[in-house]
Amino acid sequence: MPLAHMALAPMRWSDGVLLVLDQRELPAREVWLGLQSAEDVAVAIREMAVRGAPAIGVAAAYGMALAALRGDYLAAADACMRASRPTAVNLAWALDRMRPLWGSSAARLLEEAQRIEAEDVAINQAIGRHGAALVPQGAGVLTICNTGSLATAGHGTALGIIRTAHEDAKAIRVLACETRPRQQGLRLTAWELAQDGIPFAVIADSAAGRMMATGEVGLVVVGADRIAANGDTANKIGTYSLAVLANHHGIPFLVAAPTSTVDSALPDGASIPIEERDPSELTHVDCHRVAPEGCPVMNPAFDVTPADLIGAIVTELGVHCAPYDFSDLGR
Amino acid sequence: MPLAHMALAPMRWSDGVLLVLDQRELPAREVWLGLQSAEDVAVAIREMAVRGAPAIGVAAAYGMALAALRGDYLAAADACMRASRPTAVNLAWALDRMRPLWGSSAARLLEEAQRIEAEDVAINQAIGRHGAALVPQGAGVLTICNTGSLATAGHGTALGIIRTAHEDAKAIRVLACETRPRQQGLRLTAWELAQDGIPFAVIADSAAGRMMATGEVGLVVVGADRIAANGDTANKIGTYSLAVLANHHGIPFLVAAPTSTVDSALPDGASIPIEERDPSELTHVDCHRVAPEGCPVMNPAFDVTPADLIGAIVTELGVHCAPYDFSDLGR
Repeated sequence: MPLAHMALAPMRWSDGVLLVLDQRELPAREVWLGLQSAEDVAVAIREMAVRGAPAIGVAAAYGMALAALRGDYLAAADACMRASRPTAVNLAWALDRMRPLWGSSAARLLEEAQRIEAEDVAINQAIGRHGAALVPQGAGVLTICNTGSLATAGHGTALGIIRTAHEDAKAIRVLACETRPRQQGLRLTAWELAQDGIPFAVIADSAAGRMMATGEVGLVVVGADRIAANGDTANKIGTYSLAVLANHHGIPFLVAAPTSTVDSALPDGASIPIEERDPSELTHVDCHRVAPEGCPVMNPAFDVTPADLIGAIVTELGVHCAPYDFSDLGR
Repeated sequence: MPLAHMALAPMRWSDGVLLVLDQRELPAREVWLGLQSAEDVAVAIREMAVRGAPAIGVAAAYGMALAALRGDYLAAADACMRASRPTAVNLAWALDRMRPLWGSSAARLLEEAQRIEAEDVAINQAIGRHGAALVPQGAGVLTICNTGSLATAGHGTALGIIRTAHEDAKAIRVLACETRPRQQGLRLTAWELAQDGIPFAVIADSAAGRMMATGEVGLVVVGADRIAANGDTANKIGTYSLAVLANHHGIPFLVAAPTSTVDSALPDGASIPIEERDPSELTHVDCHRVAPEGCPVMNPAFDVTPADLIGAIVTELGVHCAPYDFSDLGR
């Protein structure tokens, strides 16, 4: 694995502080925030300094270790981080996993957080191996948002499949959707792909249909923020549109996620909470107003893709095909 | 008609100068450029100070009048403006209409340009009347880009239908797609809708699918840059994706355009030239770099929607339904 992969991780534990790479500053600047409490972690998640469903889970686990080290009230630490973002279930999954250790030493909580982090890298590498087998030689692979090392503990989910396919000499070319409003594709995925030397181009989200119609896309692969028991999947806003378009063009549509993204308590996607984020994400760019003053906005951060539009869901366990039944998996 | 409509036009002839409202500066600032030659007009079109297929045609007609007034070589003026943007056929249509007058006085060319401008407003009002009859009471109406007064000589095409439906008390609510990369929906359509007091919200282009799935959209109406004889339609990038999504959800999809947008010489959409614009439209916002340095980009400005995804095409002549045959219409 090239050094770039090894080095690229969105957070690091260092001397009792959780260092988090501030993803709002990328790619212009590499700024590390030193988080010292669960409250700090909650703010970093809410304001998207750390983002990506698996990375949020890992950060929250470290947040519990920070709280234990400080002697803070653990139930309050848990509640504060749990409420920081509503859609990605990995956050609740990680906090649930830490809960039985509340009576243990701070060192034990830290060890568990480090284990969750290490497991996530191994899980992503397994997802990469299972998924890469489905990537056609020479394919154009379209993806959305950032699902790479920055969104996980390392390697990535959908981008992990792309990485492994590239390492397998599949001669792929990636089309990265810009991913409005926060431009994670343009800012983060482009940055990761360039570092790894994977051929790519960024497109406007609205150009995905044309790219499919003109034969540029052989496969769509996306991540997930929450997967219901029947396979319905919440992911970055725009994912559902890509699924409809892929089906219209007969292009395979894959979802990649660890089983910690499965919420088996939900029978289907209808009850997944969809976060509505601040209008300024659309109306402003870097504090600079683009829209007319007072412009009304609807800004859902996620949408739900029904299982019948998903060709396969790739987890660390393998490739799952329809009809999906995840009622015994995940949280 | 409220005063706002009357006043809002993207250009004005004044004492031998074509004043053009610089749409790159809106909504932040109202800046008028004084164009004094066909070359000035060509630059304003290429750099999108003036934009929108019908408005481009009107500007080019005035450009020929400017050339005649200066005593410039008319064939060169024609060629220079004709090459300024490739996709919208209204540009060639207007220049073709001016050509028989090359031997006439400059005053006659100016009179013809003013006639084209006045006709365009009347045409748009006819489109508005024909189209508004198709708008359901209380509908959510989704649109893309700017097709309003700014994109035409006044009133607008798709936005003209929306305006007329609003005047008819149809109680509509507009969802305006942001329209990356240049954000005409967020900047221009939002500005026009706010001025007219039409209820609306701006959404990310990628949110269109979710809005359709959650019942927010009862009708999609878009403009056109070139319509082939069989009804295939080139329009702003993202239009094709909206058409696929609308069809998936059983939502009517309308195209609104004057017959000057029809290119009857083209049997279908396959041979419509699609402009690829500068990568900086995606990688930068107002000269500020967002993407990593050297980030590769594909930036087609238009896509082609096949006729079989279009429920109806509304021109000044009425409502045209499939199978479309425009071989006797337009240019």
